[in-house]
Amino acid sequence: MYNRIKQEAYDANMELPKLGLVLFTFGNVSVVDRENKVFAIKPSGVPYEDLKPSDMVIVDFDSNIIEGDLRPSSDTKTHAVLYKEWEGIGSIVHTHSTYGTAWAQSNRDIPIYGTTHADHLTKDIPCAPPMHDDMIKGNYEYQTGYQIVDHFRDCHLDYKEVEMMLVGNHAPFCWGKDGKKAVYNAAVLEYVAKMAFLTEQINPEVHRMKDSLINKHYERKHGKDAYYGQ
Amino acid sequence: MYNRIKQEAYDANMELPKLGLVLFTFGNVSVVDRENKVFAIKPSGVPYEDLKPSDMVIVDFDSNIIEGDLRPSSDTKTHAVLYKEWEGIGSIVHTHSTYGTAWAQSNRDIPIYGTTHADHLTKDIPCAPPMHDDMIKGNYEYQTGYQIVDHFRDCHLDYKEVEMMLVGNHAPFCWGKDGKKAVYNAAVLEYVAKMAFLTEQINPEVHRMKDSLINKHYERKHGKDAYYGQ
Amino acid sequence: MYNRIKQEAYDANMELPKLGLVLFTFGNVSVVDRENKVFAIKPSGVPYEDLKPSDMVIVDFDSNIIEGDLRPSSDTKTHAVLYKEWEGIGSIVHTHSTYGTAWAQSNRDIPIYGTTHADHLTKDIPCAPPMHDDMIKGNYEYQTGYQIVDHFRDCHLDYKEVEMMLVGNHAPFCWGKDGKKAVYNAAVLEYVAKMAFLTEQINPEVHRMKDSLINKHYERKHGKDAYYGQ
Amino acid sequence: MYNRIKQEAYDANMELPKLGLVLFTFGNVSVVDRENKVFAIKPSGVPYEDLKPSDMVIVDFDSNIIEGDLRPSSDTKTHAVLYKEWEGIGSIVHTHSTYGTAWAQSNRDIPIYGTTHADHLTKDIPCAPPMHDDMIKGNYEYQTGYQIVDHFRDCHLDYKEVEMMLVGNHAPFCWGKDGKKAVYNAAVLEYVAKMAFLTEQINPEVHRMKDSLINKHYERKHGKDAYYGQ
Repeated sequence: MYNRIKQEAYDANMELPKLGLVLFTFGNVSVVDRENKVFAIKPSGVPYEDLKPSDMVIVDFDSNIIEGDLRPSSDTKTHAVLYKEWEGIGSIVHTHSTYGTAWAQSNRDIPIYGTTHADHLTKDIPCAPPMHDDMIKGNYEYQTGYQIVDHFRDCHLDYKEVEMMLVGNHAPFCWGKDGKKAVYNAAVLEYVAKMAFLTEQINPEVHRMKDSLINKHYERKHGKDAYYGQ
Repeated sequence: MYNRIKQEAYDANMELPKLGLVLFTFGNVSVVDRENKVFAIKPSGVPYEDLKPSDMVIVDFDSNIIEGDLRPSSDTKTHAVLYKEWEGIGSIVHTHSTYGTAWAQSNRDIPIYGTTHADHLTKDIPCAPPMHDDMIKGNYEYQTGYQIVDHFRDCHLDYKEVEMMLVGNHAPFCWGKDGKKAVYNAAVLEYVAKMAFLTEQINPEVHRMKDSLINKHYERKHGKDAYYGQ
Repeated sequence: MYNRIKQEAYDANMELPKLGLVLFTFGNVSVVDRENKVFAIKPSGVPYEDLKPSDMVIVDFDSNIIEGDLRPSSDTKTHAVLYKEWEGIGSIVHTHSTYGTAWAQSNRDIPIYGTTHADHLTKDIPCAPPMHDDMIKGNYEYQTGYQIVDHFRDCHLDYKEVEMMLVGNHAPFCWGKDGKKAVYNAAVLEYVAKMAFLTEQINPEVHRMKDSLINKHYERKHGKDAYYGQ
Repeated sequence: MYNRIKQEAYDANMELPKLGLVLFTFGNVSVVDRENKVFAIKPSGVPYEDLKPSDMVIVDFDSNIIEGDLRPSSDTKTHAVLYKEWEGIGSIVHTHSTYGTAWAQSNRDIPIYGTTHADHLTKDIPCAPPMHDDMIKGNYEYQTGYQIVDHFRDCHLDYKEVEMMLVGNHAPFCWGKDGKKAVYNAAVLEYVAKMAFLTEQINPEVHRMKDSLINKHYERKHGKDAYYGQ
């Protein structure tokens, strides 16, 4: 019944080590089935080389396990909140990829310095602050989901345009219409994060790029007359 | 009829992922046929692993599609302008390679710090400034071509000597007599860009290398009595 | 008789080059047999590609060779001291991995900046100072073992919680319940060391993460109600 | 007649790309035959993937070609001078490896910050200054050899202890008793160069390590009672 999302979640998870985005099991991808209001997610602690499509765990939007013998990723509640709150997303990726995580540990948004960034979003990649202590002590992974959702609302960010972000002192979360796009976004975030780091090292006085160029690049790829591709 | 340039463009494009110069489809190579005044260029958005020589699109110097079922790279107009204006070039490469792009995002020329750089050109690798807003809003990719050509003219640079450059806030463009040489130049730019970054980190007081050494290295490889090779 | 620890030590040693933690022979792993009070360790100077399980040398806790035709690693006495003093460890790894060694050469503890670190320990990764000159001139590798043990005692660190550390001007030592866990820790140290370096470059004003978040991440993986995995 | 040194030079050259020390043809290894006063060196500009042992060119210590159809490396005269002046060396490696070259471009010696460095030499890795203009304009590669030899003499360095160095604004030169050892030294230089760069970034106030520790590590590997290996 859930074979499609299990296979898609498996395929997407297997892309993470190929793209150099994970060490050991430090990452997970889920894929949603909107009709049945469930998602398939990587089981907890299983090495990528041992993973099979049938290992994916099926979970509903309240984090109840619907199908599967293995324990779902410990980040499952964060995924569930995002699927519940953001109806337009089809897949979520969480990694501790090196450069993205370093920006998250720095508690800084990643400034938009070039067209590689602007091809994908017009905003700095946002970094949500770490949670308040009582949220940390409570239902932590569930609250992480709301920390993300609340930060987007507070900053007037649209999750359909900004498909990647950082949780402060933690690491990146990305999403997209399907598993392939979500993993693509996770790789783009890491690439942009590395180049932004280098840019500031090369020119400590650097400014964000100008709005006219940001908008041109974003519109040529995502606007109503989009024509982009390389 | 265009099989030669299709094959050469295909081969050159396929070198980009092997040399670590592209993520996903963030790059493209074209190869010109001067006799027929057309060039072959990578189609837009096709993953490298799916690319075939017959996928290459044939375009004239006014960016009209002459042959091909796929949409040509969105950077096609930039290539067309360069082929039209610079009659001595046989191939063009555009990448968003990591270190080259970081210098472009920094809006800085890459200073000539060592013989690896001087073996290939005697000048700093130039970085053209971002375009004026009206050029950005207009025929953007076409104007990018003239931004490059104009910057070379304004700075008295010779495109036959300086076969690589950066567009500010964007990324590198390189060229050469054929696809192999253009890709070679793209890899050299990335290598030199990384070492220049490191050099400034190791010695923030560093100066450009002296002219006598620049000229010796360039002449032994490109002068009339060239004898270079390693 | 010692086949189990020889095989486990061999397997663990062979993981080091796969994980990019060693150049040439710059690293070694040992695995202990608590019942027989001996450990198996990599022979000295043998390239990883030539290594066989039967090459492992069996040594007791006073560094006497019990079995084996090859010379044991020159760091053997350090391993012996740690096994003797710390009864709860099953395996030790020593590498000169790039980022970990750079922190050791900097004589700095690695500050805890994010959850990747906190998932594994609640403390900064400690860096023991270089030894006094008379200890260096004496039984150097033996004294290195006590430099580690003494530093943990002086800093009130528990080797069962903090399974990784640096010896100043030298390089990392890690351990764990078995060879697999010790090598895992060596890879985590290197990953955390790289991200901490980047974090300080991106935000020179960065602070250690807050205790509530450190404790939450550590407890969810290591506490009595642990549920962690990704 | 020269098959032994051709094979050894070929094998050593082929290690350079495997160890990540060269881009394209930016490097070369030679191996000497002391009895016949000749050396085998990589031909100029031949890609590593096309290289054969029989392509190696045989040259005497005055840079005369003794055997071979291809042009020898353009750095041949530098190699010839070193073989002539330093009778104890058996092989020479020249690369433009990334971190080593960045230090050379910075015109700085690589300070000795840790035991990885001290295991191989007790001195900072020396960087010879760029040559005077008249030497550059003259017999450049020949003068490069004397720039190296003179710098060692002026700094009271022993080429038998210090088997690696940098030429300012250029790149590393290394040597050893045979091709394998010379290439090993080229890889060690690159590794040490990267870690020294990182060390200074992590701790800008860092000092050279203390002499007692330098000498201990060097002596345990190279002293009369050497016992080192990992």
